[in-house]
Amino acid sequence: MLHNIRVVLVNTSHPGNIGGAARAMKNMGLSRLYLVDPEDFPSGEANARASGANDVLDAAIVVDTLEEALTGCSLVLGTSARDRRIPWPLLDPRECATTSLAQVEQGGEVALVFGREYAGLTNEELQRCHYHVHIPSDPAFGSLNLAAAVQVLVYEVRMAWLAAQNQPTKMNKVEATAMLNTQPVTVEELELYYEHLEQTLVEIGFLDPAKPRHLMSRLRRLYGRAGISKLEMNILRGILTETQKAARGESHPRTIPPIDNA
Amino acid sequence: MLHNIRVVLVNTSHPGNIGGAARAMKNMGLSRLYLVDPEDFPSGEANARASGANDVLDAAIVVDTLEEALTGCSLVLGTSARDRRIPWPLLDPRECATTSLAQVEQGGEVALVFGREYAGLTNEELQRCHYHVHIPSDPAFGSLNLAAAVQVLVYEVRMAWLAAQNQPTKMNKVEATAMLNTQPVTVEELELYYEHLEQTLVEIGFLDPAKPRHLMSRLRRLYGRAGISKLEMNILRGILTETQKAARGESHPRTIPPIDNA
Repeated sequence: MLHNIRVVLVNTSHPGNIGGAARAMKNMGLSRLYLVDPEDFPSGEANARASGANDVLDAAIVVDTLEEALTGCSLVLGTSARDRRIPWPLLDPRECATTSLAQVEQGGEVALVFGREYAGLTNEELQRCHYHVHIPSDPAFGSLNLAAAVQVLVYEVRMAWLAAQNQPTKMNKVEATAMLNTQPVTVEELELYYEHLEQTLVEIGFLDPAKPRHLMSRLRRLYGRAGISKLEMNILRGILTETQKAARGESHPRTIPPIDNA
Repeated sequence: MLHNIRVVLVNTSHPGNIGGAARAMKNMGLSRLYLVDPEDFPSGEANARASGANDVLDAAIVVDTLEEALTGCSLVLGTSARDRRIPWPLLDPRECATTSLAQVEQGGEVALVFGREYAGLTNEELQRCHYHVHIPSDPAFGSLNLAAAVQVLVYEVRMAWLAAQNQPTKMNKVEATAMLNTQPVTVEELELYYEHLEQTLVEIGFLDPAKPRHLMSRLRRLYGRAGISKLEMNILRGILTETQKAARGESHPRTIPPIDNA
């Protein structure tokens, strides 16, 4: 699906930006790069900045006009840094991504078009776009580096694509959680912990049963929101058991000089 | 509010990446840059790539250690490219942004930490982070350019910030939070707690300094994600102090029959 979304760079001055764009694309799973009349390409600087995404550069299609780069596209989105006199439907990068994904899901092809480093896209080029995309930068310093702008848009495309895949990132998290022994404790286990904790705090003289104040409820709030795993619970219970032994003089404390914890 | 979110670059090799990061930050309205032991800074290349964000570079704070760069922070998020053996709470860039914004709304300070170009952050550095952030790149080509990674995270921060500007109800939350004395602890306070905890665990015989295994890193993970307030920290420190007294035979434990905690 990502294969049907291409990146089009118009009249790029710095080959380093072409390389940076290629790397950003490959990082996010995109591969089709079109270069409209680049000033310096191919270039060693582009390859250096691509940093392993040379295959994207090697497969890049160099054309003379924007029209050629848009061949076969059903949706064209052009980045626009400034407000233009001619009003146009304007999307933010997230809306750009969801609109693009919806288009390729329907069998269409999408072009994300980026203009020149200093001048952006011309009004004529912008009028070839179905939508304009504006990255919501600080108006006082609004112009992003070209490769950085590509990074933002292709990142949003990947986020939208992952969401469309039944959220595989969340799946991995679940699997990882199961594998890493982070199964959460039950309410009963947590209650047993609070009992053990309260008992221990009384034994070490920190909690006065006659004047409990809000101590246990504060500790419940803290541990309750931490989402403790079974493994962690074993550790916490172990600490309490050893604390009790020490308080009862049953343990054999290590003889090391105390650290000043003030 | 964005002023309370800093970007920390650890041991950066290429000054161009420092400049690119500064530009990305200024584009998105962030200004506080910390450089931990950069290889080459200040540098003409950094200024060239900053492309007008020289004020961010000029104000950058250069320090020797990550610890210094985190001074005053209550929430630390570290970018992580790879799966680690020790699992850690993992956020995507969007979750990273909403978590960061929520923290500064509560009066906290946030650090977004980025590692070395080729090696990322060390395990020790990653353990200083409350959360790890992973940019969901293609696993087959997963490593983003450093400035591009900064761009993605600060872009998401700006998107979250813009969204928060349209929600006046957030104001009430801030007031409520302030009233409930839930001001978050700083990294320094948390580190002092971990020191105190480790010392205490050794004293009660639960932690063998010769065989520490993963105990402290597991406890860091637990307390790190709990988002401890200053009030709660006072309680936790108090418990440790009383535990030490009990272990040293200095306290007067209450004589009550032990409860079976099995």
